[in-house]
Amino acid sequence: MEYKFSDKVTELKPSAIREILKFTSLPGVISLAAGNPAPEAFPSKEIGEITQRILSEEPVAALQYSVTEGYTPLREALKKRLAEQGSFDPDIDDLIITSGGQQASELSCKTFLNPGDALICEAPSFVGCLNAFKSYNSKLIGIGLEEDGMNIEKLEAALKENPSAKLIYVIANFQNPTGLCTSFEKRKAIYDLAKKYDVMILEDNPYGDIRFAGENIPSIKSLDTDGRVIYAGSFSKILAPGMRVGFVSAPKEVIQKIVVCKQVSDVHTNILAQMICHEYITKYDLNAHLEDIRGIYRHKCGLMLDCIEKTFSPKVKYTRPQGGLFIWATLPEGSDMPAFCKRAVEEYKVAVVPGNAFMISETDETTSFRLNFSTPTDEQLVKGTQIIGSLTKEMFGE
Amino acid sequence: MEYKFSDKVTELKPSAIREILKFTSLPGVISLAAGNPAPEAFPSKEIGEITQRILSEEPVAALQYSVTEGYTPLREALKKRLAEQGSFDPDIDDLIITSGGQQASELSCKTFLNPGDALICEAPSFVGCLNAFKSYNSKLIGIGLEEDGMNIEKLEAALKENPSAKLIYVIANFQNPTGLCTSFEKRKAIYDLAKKYDVMILEDNPYGDIRFAGENIPSIKSLDTDGRVIYAGSFSKILAPGMRVGFVSAPKEVIQKIVVCKQVSDVHTNILAQMICHEYITKYDLNAHLEDIRGIYRHKCGLMLDCIEKTFSPKVKYTRPQGGLFIWATLPEGSDMPAFCKRAVEEYKVAVVPGNAFMISETDETTSFRLNFSTPTDEQLVKGTQIIGSLTKEMFGE
Repeated sequence: MEYKFSDKVTELKPSAIREILKFTSLPGVISLAAGNPAPEAFPSKEIGEITQRILSEEPVAALQYSVTEGYTPLREALKKRLAEQGSFDPDIDDLIITSGGQQASELSCKTFLNPGDALICEAPSFVGCLNAFKSYNSKLIGIGLEEDGMNIEKLEAALKENPSAKLIYVIANFQNPTGLCTSFEKRKAIYDLAKKYDVMILEDNPYGDIRFAGENIPSIKSLDTDGRVIYAGSFSKILAPGMRVGFVSAPKEVIQKIVVCKQVSDVHTNILAQMICHEYITKYDLNAHLEDIRGIYRHKCGLMLDCIEKTFSPKVKYTRPQGGLFIWATLPEGSDMPAFCKRAVEEYKVAVVPGNAFMISETDETTSFRLNFSTPTDEQLVKGTQIIGSLTKEMFGE
Repeated sequence: MEYKFSDKVTELKPSAIREILKFTSLPGVISLAAGNPAPEAFPSKEIGEITQRILSEEPVAALQYSVTEGYTPLREALKKRLAEQGSFDPDIDDLIITSGGQQASELSCKTFLNPGDALICEAPSFVGCLNAFKSYNSKLIGIGLEEDGMNIEKLEAALKENPSAKLIYVIANFQNPTGLCTSFEKRKAIYDLAKKYDVMILEDNPYGDIRFAGENIPSIKSLDTDGRVIYAGSFSKILAPGMRVGFVSAPKEVIQKIVVCKQVSDVHTNILAQMICHEYITKYDLNAHLEDIRGIYRHKCGLMLDCIEKTFSPKVKYTRPQGGLFIWATLPEGSDMPAFCKRAVEEYKVAVVPGNAFMISETDETTSFRLNFSTPTDEQLVKGTQIIGSLTKEMFGE
């Protein structure tokens, strides 16, 4: 039969990354295309211990229905941690546990955007959230990303031109896909503009805890005096993504609406996973664990940057991230980047993600592609990066 | 600041059940208001064993990102089980794992309904799904429920009057809140009408496996020859709801759209929970476990029906469920049911759910209320039901 799908999904397509990821499962292909944390960064042994304790001592709590807001002890622990970091204000804010950081963005969008309302974001940006916003028929407006964050003049122009703008979506730390950070000055500027044009900010911070170089920059949320910042975090990059535990810190009134949206979406987040996160962050040494993870990524990022420096054509530019999982490489202007990525995977068996996957529209032109250093082994990383390097030299010169 | 929420959430309120549930946590209150499975029905020991094995032998698979469609071995096991039950056709259908049965309904709605499109459902119906449908600004049309399912004449009239109708939502087995079953004849009639008026059916079957009396009735999905039935199931009532694992069996083309919606919603369902479900249904004796659960609910339902028979005013009518978790009691016409429920909890410390919580609009009149027999202990169940019985006699006579 012919299905009459809703307007939300008729235009929605599976992410272009998925097409690339198909190649990555072929034998012999080295994938620099993933976005997975390094498996050696999972505290598997500790999660095993914790789970065994919970299921033998509190099985009913871990298996029964629970409340939509999330496991209370985990919420309390997170509020405390975020308050110390300036991203939770006990007088204004409340906190809800979500099924991963992705759900935080989706529920924020559902809570604020009517069809056609504008959402302003960095261009390029995280494709998962771009698709979530599109699934509510939002009008996406991309603002070009500079070394230190969005172009502020263009942001103001977009706010002026789009009175229907309701949200500015920002990944201020080690942005996916570029690995770039928004400077403190630009965080302030973005907040001031949000205030001036009366829009909300959705600050997505899945990577903030894995800074392996440079100095920490306060969150936009920490600048928020009038309750306009929705702050989303996640356990995916610091414990394990398969558990699907994230959270939102936002003004109480906003959290109340997000709670209602979450209730109709999945009732609550898997409760065992919430209890595991709680026990890990309160009874184990989270800071020591974070230092270990940062060590892993510092090493892997350094290794990839070394290989790039040694093997890439000098005409290819690239970012030098201080955290996160990704490097963003840019071929010379006018290059056929999709053809480059296609040759890389088909002829040379190395997969990277073509940059247009992260543009507002996949037809937006870009000569960039994304490299991931967290998922491959060191050996794969070196070999894969060198192969990409050779290809850049072959196509763009020594 | 003043928040400009979307049209989806401005009217959306936390479920009325929540208000009642507040009372249930007060000291001394007996709750017959919950919808939780009996904790003694959880195979806690087995889940503990399985989890320990998975986390020691396959920790990375259990903790890393996974695919949106769900854990492949679990999908295969479910397809096989559903094919045997007639609810999965390998030629037409595909299957996706969802974060509980609730997500199955929410994603189906997002996939098919534009704002203002009509969704037809039983009245009363499950409040969680009614709210999910409302959160997409659907026009809800309730069809009065008879002993053997929806009134078919009224269903046809509603389909005739509402060309924008896209979905019929049916809980055919042991419906929440009434405990009633749709007869085989009415299942066929509903399917035929869906075909005649070219609408989809969302068949929600969280309770089908816990039939403790009478004969099994084939699902509407098993009658589906043209790919118009979306069938939703859940592990919440047969293993444990805290895990949040459900699934949808539907035509491939529909599942593809649901996959895209799920991807932007929570990427995938907690993978450890999916692996637990897979191992339980393939390596343990699910049928023996289901027999145990049915025994528990047969006993509890029987106990409550006995108490009702002995202590309720003869003017109060009630359903005699053959499965599920709920009994639906109806006070004499014209009674002030909300006042009755209020007195029950405030004066006599027994909580039940006022029936209007399950109506399309909470202002729709009803003199019914919902009793739950799965969550209380036998002692609480007897005492609570007797107290409600005394109150019915006090208010409506011997």
